[in-house]
Amino acid sequence: MDFERIKTRLDALVASGRKAELRGALNMLNEVDIAEYLEDLDNEKMLMVFRLLPKDVSADVFSYMDNDQRTRIMEAMDDTEAMRLIDDMFIDDAVDFLEELPAGVVKRMLQGCNEQKRQLINQFLRYPENSAGSIMTIEYMEFNIGTTVGQAMAEIRRTGVDKETINTLYILDAGRKLLGTVGLRKLLLAADDRKVEELMNTQVIFVHTTDDQEVVADTVRKYDLLSIPVVDHEERLVGIVTVDDIVDVIEEENTEDFEKMAAMLPSDDEYLKTNVFTLAKNRLPWLLILMISATFTGMIITHFENVLSTAAGIGVALTACIPMLMDTGGNCGSQASTLVIRGLALGEIQFRDILKVLWKEVRVALMLGAVLALVNFLRIWFFTPYDKDIAFVVSLAMFFTIIIAKSIGCTLPLLAKAIHLDPALMASPLITTMVDAASLTVLFSIATAVFHM
Amino acid sequence: MDFERIKTRLDALVASGRKAELRGALNMLNEVDIAEYLEDLDNEKMLMVFRLLPKDVSADVFSYMDNDQRTRIMEAMDDTEAMRLIDDMFIDDAVDFLEELPAGVVKRMLQGCNEQKRQLINQFLRYPENSAGSIMTIEYMEFNIGTTVGQAMAEIRRTGVDKETINTLYILDAGRKLLGTVGLRKLLLAADDRKVEELMNTQVIFVHTTDDQEVVADTVRKYDLLSIPVVDHEERLVGIVTVDDIVDVIEEENTEDFEKMAAMLPSDDEYLKTNVFTLAKNRLPWLLILMISATFTGMIITHFENVLSTAAGIGVALTACIPMLMDTGGNCGSQASTLVIRGLALGEIQFRDILKVLWKEVRVALMLGAVLALVNFLRIWFFTPYDKDIAFVVSLAMFFTIIIAKSIGCTLPLLAKAIHLDPALMASPLITTMVDAASLTVLFSIATAVFHM
Repeated sequence: MDFERIKTRLDALVASGRKAELRGALNMLNEVDIAEYLEDLDNEKMLMVFRLLPKDVSADVFSYMDNDQRTRIMEAMDDTEAMRLIDDMFIDDAVDFLEELPAGVVKRMLQGCNEQKRQLINQFLRYPENSAGSIMTIEYMEFNIGTTVGQAMAEIRRTGVDKETINTLYILDAGRKLLGTVGLRKLLLAADDRKVEELMNTQVIFVHTTDDQEVVADTVRKYDLLSIPVVDHEERLVGIVTVDDIVDVIEEENTEDFEKMAAMLPSDDEYLKTNVFTLAKNRLPWLLILMISATFTGMIITHFENVLSTAAGIGVALTACIPMLMDTGGNCGSQASTLVIRGLALGEIQFRDILKVLWKEVRVALMLGAVLALVNFLRIWFFTPYDKDIAFVVSLAMFFTIIIAKSIGCTLPLLAKAIHLDPALMASPLITTMVDAASLTVLFSIATAVFHM
Repeated sequence: MDFERIKTRLDALVASGRKAELRGALNMLNEVDIAEYLEDLDNEKMLMVFRLLPKDVSADVFSYMDNDQRTRIMEAMDDTEAMRLIDDMFIDDAVDFLEELPAGVVKRMLQGCNEQKRQLINQFLRYPENSAGSIMTIEYMEFNIGTTVGQAMAEIRRTGVDKETINTLYILDAGRKLLGTVGLRKLLLAADDRKVEELMNTQVIFVHTTDDQEVVADTVRKYDLLSIPVVDHEERLVGIVTVDDIVDVIEEENTEDFEKMAAMLPSDDEYLKTNVFTLAKNRLPWLLILMISATFTGMIITHFENVLSTAAGIGVALTACIPMLMDTGGNCGSQASTLVIRGLALGEIQFRDILKVLWKEVRVALMLGAVLALVNFLRIWFFTPYDKDIAFVVSLAMFFTIIIAKSIGCTLPLLAKAIHLDPALMASPLITTMVDAASLTVLFSIATAVFHM
């Protein structure tokens, strides 16, 4: 599908104002593509095209828009039209949208919904952000025990078209407690007079409304689920989360980890849509903390002032090697920490593995340290004006730096996890500062010993 | 579900050898949990438990095991048993497993499969690794045009239980070309004598067998799909990919990006299961390249030797600030590059946005530079033995370093993308070296000018 060509044709139709043809053309497109197309139109044209869409399509298109676009649409609509739109949306999409609006506007919007939907939306809005409750949907099929296969099929035929998934059916007792699930394919194969509970699978994997969305994502990933039921504290079914929403959660959590590991406060916003003040605000705290903590590395250098200034030549030679030593240490540390942080995020590594991990990293460090120190020795000897003694001091310092860097890099995230801190947040930016301090101390200590200063 | 308690009970049953009870207990568990439980058993016990599982359950459990475990199971089984196991697996799981085995073993294993399955597996094994073809499954429901709803329902009742999904049905012409899809819920609601093509949705989003799995994942994520059809070069349907497999692809791709950004060769293996030689091998190349390229930063320092050695006190003061300056520059650069690399991966940023991105980063850099330079000036003035001049030189150098770091950090990944290199691979580790060189040059140039050296 060539989106650019489609766009050009739609542009022509929009400009000409031929609404019937435009409606026909839009009919050929996926809701996601329509939302993408609308993004570049001005307010007036966007609303004109949006109003041409069939009711159910427009609600879907609306749910694929970003907040900017949604606000533009809502501002251009009158209240009745806006309320009707919200009424047509799936409850999770509606809640997702309403969460971003000021409370006053939400209240006004909800007046247009029917009583039942309003109550539900209000209930959803009370779940903590990023909890299972806040991302679940209530458009699923549920049956009480005692329902026959025939009755269930009739019900699915009657209401199934409005559900997000009919693949899995949920079986409840009289108190709404979740007893089990039945796959639709099993229902299709069963005789009409059998009871649903005879077909049900009782090993149900579920989450609680207050569980973090990361827990939901981990569970869905672990068990390869297409949807997962969400229960309240009394194990009564209140919603489900489908895997397509989990895909978004996973990408969100990954983006957060990337941001934390690059010393930023995590943010949900798209880069191009975030203003520069917000970007600066998210980046400043860690930069400040790390800069100020670098006072410490400065103190180490000042402490070894005699090494740098007394022996002619040696000081400059050592200084010239500091960036390389620090970068190699930093890279070694972040290699180890990245693998451990990632392993923790995917549930492949636990805190109890700490000795196993440390032993692995020390052996890797010994190998890498030997190779890099040797190459570095030859590099300094042959390609710089400095002599063998300098080469020896720097290479030995490098060897120990790598071992220290790998050890810090692999243990810090595990320790952070053990005291319930975020491994990505606590460990990654701090490792560089710690490794810097270690590498400088090692370098100057060895230099002092070798050159008898 | 308390996995540890379950484990203890199973351990007791395994030790006592009470097979009937054990079978009953296993029956209560999810396949994923059984695979996890088996991991810690010795070969003999593992095989004993594995053989107690019902045939279809054992094939599922096997597909949730890692390669180590699978190899252990296969080695303990005789050929007939192994072949039967492969025959019971879904084709994508079987291919996934066979890909990791030596060609000779694969050939022997396939002799036990029926002719049709053997041909299919062979065809699948020919798709390039990580292509749509290599991750697709063929367990889907397809109908030719002309099929009635009643016929389709009968067919689903007959064979649907063996399919990975019956949510979406695929409609083909006589030449197997994919014409459209029908949702099962739509079929359930339609009259028995209607033709499937009257119900079908013709805006089908699909991928080609040779498309990279990343393309598949991006498409599924963009359009919130539960499954996506895979077609050959003549648009004939050959398979589908379901979203639960996409979740694994997304995590794999994210892990690769994390690894590349931490200067490692990407690897598919779990950390704890990778031996130290492989770990060292993956980490060595970039460490070597970056260490050797640091020769360049060393040269810059040697070049400004006079600044470091002539003016007493100033040299040590500047040296003491190098780590802080380099780290701040490196952090600023990786903040910018991380957001851009992530934006590229999620399709939120394109190469054509380069000027927009650069303008954003320059403004962010001006703000951050001003704040950090000011704080740094006060820090050096009040908390170190160095005087105002040093504080001024270092802070001014910091201001320019931040602007350069942000500019390099945001443009390099975009340039890499433009020439079809991997932004994460090419940009991230190189940025540090470039920013190091820039920050040192700026620091010494300003120092030379201010102190008239």
